[in-house]
Amino acid sequence: MPGTLDLDAALQYVRAHRDRHLQELREFLGIASVSAISSHAGDVRQAAQWLKHRLLSAGFSTVRVEETGGHPVVVATNPGHPDRPTVLVYGHYDVQPVDPLPAWRHPPFEPAIVDGALYARGASDDKGQVFMHVIAAEAWLRTGNELPVNLIFLLEGEEEIGSPHLGNYIASRQDLLRADLAVISDTPMYAEGVPAICYGLRGLAALELTVAGPKQDLHSGIFGGTVANPAHALATLIASLHDADQRVAVAGFYDDVDLPTPAERHAFAQLPFDDTAYQDEVGVPELAGEPGFSPLERTWIRPTVEVNGLWSGFSGEGQKTIIPASAHAKLTCRLVPHQDPVRVLDLLEAHLRAHCPKGVALTIARGEGAPGTVTPIDHPAVRSAEQAIRAVYGRPAAFIRMGGSIPVVVTLHDVLAMPTLLLGFALPNENFHAPNEHFHLDNFHRGAETVVRLWSLLAGWKREEGSQ
Amino acid sequence: MPGTLDLDAALQYVRAHRDRHLQELREFLGIASVSAISSHAGDVRQAAQWLKHRLLSAGFSTVRVEETGGHPVVVATNPGHPDRPTVLVYGHYDVQPVDPLPAWRHPPFEPAIVDGALYARGASDDKGQVFMHVIAAEAWLRTGNELPVNLIFLLEGEEEIGSPHLGNYIASRQDLLRADLAVISDTPMYAEGVPAICYGLRGLAALELTVAGPKQDLHSGIFGGTVANPAHALATLIASLHDADQRVAVAGFYDDVDLPTPAERHAFAQLPFDDTAYQDEVGVPELAGEPGFSPLERTWIRPTVEVNGLWSGFSGEGQKTIIPASAHAKLTCRLVPHQDPVRVLDLLEAHLRAHCPKGVALTIARGEGAPGTVTPIDHPAVRSAEQAIRAVYGRPAAFIRMGGSIPVVVTLHDVLAMPTLLLGFALPNENFHAPNEHFHLDNFHRGAETVVRLWSLLAGWKREEGSQ
Repeated sequence: MPGTLDLDAALQYVRAHRDRHLQELREFLGIASVSAISSHAGDVRQAAQWLKHRLLSAGFSTVRVEETGGHPVVVATNPGHPDRPTVLVYGHYDVQPVDPLPAWRHPPFEPAIVDGALYARGASDDKGQVFMHVIAAEAWLRTGNELPVNLIFLLEGEEEIGSPHLGNYIASRQDLLRADLAVISDTPMYAEGVPAICYGLRGLAALELTVAGPKQDLHSGIFGGTVANPAHALATLIASLHDADQRVAVAGFYDDVDLPTPAERHAFAQLPFDDTAYQDEVGVPELAGEPGFSPLERTWIRPTVEVNGLWSGFSGEGQKTIIPASAHAKLTCRLVPHQDPVRVLDLLEAHLRAHCPKGVALTIARGEGAPGTVTPIDHPAVRSAEQAIRAVYGRPAAFIRMGGSIPVVVTLHDVLAMPTLLLGFALPNENFHAPNEHFHLDNFHRGAETVVRLWSLLAGWKREEGSQ
Repeated sequence: MPGTLDLDAALQYVRAHRDRHLQELREFLGIASVSAISSHAGDVRQAAQWLKHRLLSAGFSTVRVEETGGHPVVVATNPGHPDRPTVLVYGHYDVQPVDPLPAWRHPPFEPAIVDGALYARGASDDKGQVFMHVIAAEAWLRTGNELPVNLIFLLEGEEEIGSPHLGNYIASRQDLLRADLAVISDTPMYAEGVPAICYGLRGLAALELTVAGPKQDLHSGIFGGTVANPAHALATLIASLHDADQRVAVAGFYDDVDLPTPAERHAFAQLPFDDTAYQDEVGVPELAGEPGFSPLERTWIRPTVEVNGLWSGFSGEGQKTIIPASAHAKLTCRLVPHQDPVRVLDLLEAHLRAHCPKGVALTIARGEGAPGTVTPIDHPAVRSAEQAIRAVYGRPAAFIRMGGSIPVVVTLHDVLAMPTLLLGFALPNENFHAPNEHFHLDNFHRGAETVVRLWSLLAGWKREEGSQ
């Protein structure tokens, strides 16, 4: 039978240890766990070890650093109560690369507090939110309480490179990871002061193009005019991906895309959105995008094809009058629910091959992909989360979708039949994936309290279900 | 009155000192005089000092390293005979950057001899050919002879960055540099075993594009769909520069371009040219270019617009799912005689501004430019050069044009009213501006002998003119 559940003691614990928790988070953020860059593999592993020790000190009885074939996962568990719900908290301790480094006002792995926000790579995406969950668990475990829910922490080190090994890991450890619900804090609030529950995510599909021309860079005077320039061919290919209206021009790309319901469009339209403030925030001369959709719709429910990087030839100081030997681009698509990543990559590949100019050789390397997802918003856990948010923030939660991708949501649903609650406390302008990433400490602390309350509210969920 | 002119002694000198001369050339090539990269400025200056000492040891009475505001020029002179022609030998001791460094089979500044060719950055373009002239002068000066012509050496250190200071320098030192003829060895032979005199060069016009979008890289999930991607905009701009037939699509670009005369087309068509061998040499899947022109015509008498480099966003290992803050391209045009570089840049800039997509800011920075040039092929110096070539190579010289640019030819004509003889001994496939640049030693040695003979043949030129 469940023991004591003293919510006030747990909340008091979180408040009393703020300084220590903040210092610990700075230590965690100081580890340069960049998963995309192989020279940082040791740092990624160090972050996993750091988490293991911290979860043990939080009161978890078993913490494993498990091999996956790539960067490891960290899994923490406690002995479970059979009549309490089991909740899997997923997060990631790896971070995005930091370039361009000169754009950072503080070194990305030397956390700095400025105006109530903590600046560091990973502050909000996702180490800060992972640590928030560690605190919330500790608050129950170190105050003479029992945990109101059976917690499993699953923390991976490859989220920023598309989680190449996580699917296999989850499939191979289903007994360890089986739960009634997944909670993920890797999405933003809707806006400052507007906490949110996110019920939809876009998916992702990645590919890299290589356009090869001459076997080596050629003198553009001596050879210019007789061979196709790979940089021109690459530009032609990229330009062909969109029409003049910024719609994706790849045949079939929109085939499986659902139009929003009138109710959904109405709900989105009710959310506060200031075009001018948004434009100022991102710092563009004017907003752009697909005609017929609002900015929120463009990022939440419409798919994109986006160049993330391109390079060819000489980019140094001065002139180098060459025809480059090759040209390269990294592309990712953001997908909406019902778009199959494999089919989208098939369509893209067919389009690119059909549009490739003569005189060059095109190579396409596919990256990882994941479909978009939608979570039912009438799930009991969603209702509990809304209640916890209301108690901490004093206002109702917004129900939003998000343009980013969390492939694990798909895996947890497909492999473990688990619904996911997306409950994030970052702000949308906290520079995830960009220089000067940060996390507002007020939301860090409130987020921990919200999670403490959420576990308390979920304690009886399975008994309620059983009694129905 | 002229003293002794013992041609055989001079030729014998060149042959007797091959080993020492080769060793000295290796030393010269070991200096990393990359003019485009500011951290190599000291190396450029070191190469100038090396040349100064070597020209003094060759027998020149006065050698100056003169400041220009950038990299210095080296000027060598001897007291002149008034009844001998004065010949200015122009060359450059700076070299192109070496990247991509991993593509070099030997370090670019550690000269290596493989199969009778000397491999190093600058071996053929242009240090090796400059040193060939040093040897030829030394052969006259160190064998008890007098110089058959009054020689002025003008060797600059900024050719590979567009000679930004040379024009001013020449204009300010007209008395020092005035001559009857300029000789430049910075062009290739037509082919292996086919020595050539080049009578036409293409010009150059450079610009750099910067397309700015959001004020920093944005998360492509959270923001993707609402802002114009600068990499897409750059691709659209580059793609707009050519039509589907690979003609330049910039309005007015071909306005001032002369069509070749039937005689010129006929002469070009007589030159041996093997499409398949050319294609194999450059290593492309198929040749490309403007319809209606042969490959020789495309490189010699047709203008181009070429991307030399482009870059945007993330190009490292793995994925970085961003909308890049900016995208960049370096472009150069190759121009033919009568195309004005300033007008061409005006046309390009107008085209780019007209084609720039919405939502981004376009900045255009103009680089240096020079028009194309044609030299009269019936000049007495050209006839003497043909005679010297015939004596050394045992076959007539080909009269060719070249697709590259030598801006100094324009300056020497405009400022000093000097015709230029383009007499180069590199081979077209010796990888100028590319990894593994090299120079065949047989042509290095024969080139020196050809120059020794040319000075002898030119000795009486001015007297002949006077007697006419």
